Amino acid sequence: MMKHENLYKYIIGIADNSLILGQRMGELCGHGPSLETDIACTNISLDLFGQVRSYYQYAAKIAGDNRTEDDIAMLRKEREYVNVLLVEQPNTDFAYIMTRHFLFDMYHYMFLQELQKSQDLTLSAIATKSIKEVSYHLRFSTDWIKRLGDGTEESHSKMQNAIDDLWTYTDELFHLTDADKAMVKAGVGVDVTKLKDTYYTKVSEILQEATLEVPESKYFQKGGKQGIHTEHMGYLLAELQYMQRAYPNMEW
Amino acid sequence: MMKHENLYKYIIGIADNSLILGQRMGELCGHGPSLETDIACTNISLDLFGQVRSYYQYAAKIAGDNRTEDDIAMLRKEREYVNVLLVEQPNTDFAYIMTRHFLFDMYHYMFLQELQKSQDLTLSAIATKSIKEVSYHLRFSTDWIKRLGDGTEESHSKMQNAIDDLWTYTDELFHLTDADKAMVKAGVGVDVTKLKDTYYTKVSEILQEATLEVPESKYFQKGGKQGIHTEHMGYLLAELQYMQRAYPNMEW
Repeated sequence: MMKHENLYKYIIGIADNSLILGQRMGELCGHGPSLETDIACTNISLDLFGQVRSYYQYAAKIAGDNRTEDDIAMLRKEREYVNVLLVEQPNTDFAYIMTRHFLFDMYHYMFLQELQKSQDLTLSAIATKSIKEVSYHLRFSTDWIKRLGDGTEESHSKMQNAIDDLWTYTDELFHLTDADKAMVKAGVGVDVTKLKDTYYTKVSEILQEATLEVPESKYFQKGGKQGIHTEHMGYLLAELQYMQRAYPNMEW
Repeated sequence: MMKHENLYKYIIGIADNSLILGQRMGELCGHGPSLETDIACTNISLDLFGQVRSYYQYAAKIAGDNRTEDDIAMLRKEREYVNVLLVEQPNTDFAYIMTRHFLFDMYHYMFLQELQKSQDLTLSAIATKSIKEVSYHLRFSTDWIKRLGDGTEESHSKMQNAIDDLWTYTDELFHLTDADKAMVKAGVGVDVTKLKDTYYTKVSEILQEATLEVPESKYFQKGGKQGIHTEHMGYLLAELQYMQRAYPNMEW
């Protein structure tokens, strides 16, 4: 067992969400609906990858063996990735892309606010650096939710469809793994269960402003935090890992 | 240099077409427009993979080192695959899928008829075994070309669109590489340039029967036979190779 195994797992848990969401956003490079949006999506992807590097570098240091940030990012098996199912959902259409981002950004912003107070100074510093970028992500996706929700009949209907579908992946954001619990107890981790009510209140307010209905479903998906992913994850990893798998130890 | 390098390259050239087309058809498993079609597409994929195994096993024997059929199929770099560009084109819609198949099947059938006469007895035997399956593939795709071309306004328009687009990849089927030329000279390979006129005559007859227009474009794409592929190839290989890359030397 690694000396600081819970801390290691905790960091990976944070970073994997941003890695996988960043990969999804990166898939859009050159495919955005307008040049400005295309560049915005790619920039958000780069923000997330930048944050991910800080987390994985820290995790690699804690592991204390020879693994590098690239090994952690690129060479794990599917079951070793512990991102929430929400972020791995595919780029079905622009409504899905923005809804997925919005549902994650709201959580991400609230999470980083709390992580800034961590007694682990490295995590606290990463949170302080990241939250500026994430506040922009949240503004960007919130704007699109409002614009498309309260837009044409077609854009409204596509947004409602995306919300109804992706809603089922929101609850998992507030689950605590054993490592999370240990880190909360140590004053290092964020007790995400305490963020849940505020999250749903804030999300609901914005959906209502966007003339969208807040789903009433009480049935939620989970599994990502335990490494049990949806069918989309394997394809995502095949692309994400291909260069490192085909050209081991490659560097840019 | 390998002792029988031209023969090795010649076999790979034949097999890569079927490998990549088989992979594309395999992507449809569970996604066909009806249960019967779904199963047909998956069976065609399996036929092609079966043929591919015979070719790669023979190629591995010729190479005479430790490489196996799986190494050849799964572990080459993109530039080492020499399939024609036609077969790597994506599953855009069912019209594209059937058109791509039809345009290849017609060539494939005519090619195998000639390959049966090869002075290389292994290749001749593989051709004789494969042509039964391929005659079924050709009947299957020809039926769909007629049914959809001479179907509704929408199916006709989608078919014409697919034909116009994929037509540009047909000419490459009749290019000879240096290895091909050497094998033709040795009585082993098929001189595909001699198949070209009959191919276009037969294809045109079926398109006309399907009330589809035969494209007049004289501009054609090429490159696959030299390992220069379209943007779709990298994604296809990422999926094709993922298991062998992630779990080296895995066996079922």
